[in-house]
Amino acid sequence: MSDPLELLRARYGADHIPASASRYAPDAINPVLETLLAHRSVRGFRKDALPAGTLELLIAAAQSAPSSSNLQTFSVVSLEEPERKSRVATLAADQEFIREAPLFLAWLADLSRLQHIADAGQVEAEGLQYLDTFLMGAIDAALAAQNVVTAAESLGLGTVYVGALRNQPLEVARELGLPQGVFPLFGLAVGVPDAARPASVKPRLPQELVLHREQYNTAPVDAGIARYDTLIADFNRSQGLPPARWTERTLERVRSVSALRGRDKLREQLGVQGFELK
Amino acid sequence: MSDPLELLRARYGADHIPASASRYAPDAINPVLETLLAHRSVRGFRKDALPAGTLELLIAAAQSAPSSSNLQTFSVVSLEEPERKSRVATLAADQEFIREAPLFLAWLADLSRLQHIADAGQVEAEGLQYLDTFLMGAIDAALAAQNVVTAAESLGLGTVYVGALRNQPLEVARELGLPQGVFPLFGLAVGVPDAARPASVKPRLPQELVLHREQYNTAPVDAGIARYDTLIADFNRSQGLPPARWTERTLERVRSVSALRGRDKLREQLGVQGFELK
Repeated sequence: MSDPLELLRARYGADHIPASASRYAPDAINPVLETLLAHRSVRGFRKDALPAGTLELLIAAAQSAPSSSNLQTFSVVSLEEPERKSRVATLAADQEFIREAPLFLAWLADLSRLQHIADAGQVEAEGLQYLDTFLMGAIDAALAAQNVVTAAESLGLGTVYVGALRNQPLEVARELGLPQGVFPLFGLAVGVPDAARPASVKPRLPQELVLHREQYNTAPVDAGIARYDTLIADFNRSQGLPPARWTERTLERVRSVSALRGRDKLREQLGVQGFELK
Repeated sequence: MSDPLELLRARYGADHIPASASRYAPDAINPVLETLLAHRSVRGFRKDALPAGTLELLIAAAQSAPSSSNLQTFSVVSLEEPERKSRVATLAADQEFIREAPLFLAWLADLSRLQHIADAGQVEAEGLQYLDTFLMGAIDAALAAQNVVTAAESLGLGTVYVGALRNQPLEVARELGLPQGVFPLFGLAVGVPDAARPASVKPRLPQELVLHREQYNTAPVDAGIARYDTLIADFNRSQGLPPARWTERTLERVRSVSALRGRDKLREQLGVQGFELK
């Protein structure tokens, strides 16, 4: 069992763990917390197939996540066939780890089941045409997917999310045969981590910038961000990467429409798949 | 340690567990899978305060979840003061369990940190004005929140999500002092479950309706839904509730705009908080 202080030092930097952490005795940690706190995204996979039954167990964990009003507004397409997986990889920023991983899950907002029920009951289902209902599907899918991440890690597997599944969502929808009312949200690659290319715990923003007590804290954040910039630059250096600061990377990502890599068309693309987003 | 087959029977109904489940030996399960598969939403809490340091540990789990491009586009406001928590409960469909629970977390899409960095760098941050970026914040927040659910359950605590935080989001934003670029997505009540009002594992749709292999399966779903309708009616009866079928409840929820309880105004309300959603 790991020392919880060690896990928190990796996550926040040795000098920036929450003050209350000194209270945690090593026995305050349990295998669940250890799995959650030790998360790292894996982008180097061995080609080993997953043990039989793993996919079904992961999806049982996904379906065990809470669902808004139990409407279960998500679906998932599992890809294991190398050729289709490779074509989807090409659509998702051509990321090689998607080809390497034996399993790729495409997470979908899915209102088509509810539409089907409404059609059968000759009801118009006005509610399905609103932005809030799409958002519900996206949140349902994310809660379910995160259970898969945790379940997979408990089995010694590694995972990484693929937001680039939204770079060309209509092409993904065609490849996966998605009907109206179903939209690809993000991918998740799952596989056995390649020990030759180990992943590290990535430091996050100081907790006091993310956790606000009773009301949103509008105190200046510059000092906290400067501290985090140093932490991330050091982390990048330790990974053999250029020592870019967090603010640099962030500005690159948000400064222009072109940095969205096609995702500026999401509203229109959702419309094509039948989401009015009133 | 629970038998994995027992957990799967509770989740899918005794006769409908995935075929591959017969492969799982009791030792295939681990404490993480057990926690995930045994999830139940808790709506009856004891008023006991949480042990010191619990909130910080839960938020460390939240921040350990993956974040899209590491942009960390979420924040959370923790409410423990009874009066403010009660006012937020009133705004969120007046649900009593929010008052009972010692901790209520309001999960927020937060682009204000990125806007601040852009302002400091004299960059326009065009990317922040797109629907995709709001969606990124919602997904980041959901992944983080689900880690809190899992962490809390590992500590013997119970949780329940509160989608009704979006019924009156601008009033919630005022109560929590949210600046431009920050929007309330959903709540999470956390506390010690009241053993006198136990919660049960809720059955979910048959796995084959949610998991599609290689392509979206457009085969008829009616038989699977009819089976699930019976399962949910039996479940409701076992809970001392009217034996409503899933399709009935679903139709009530999606048939009209009024059933959205104010959530038909989400687009406009996001605009007020500074989200253009281009």
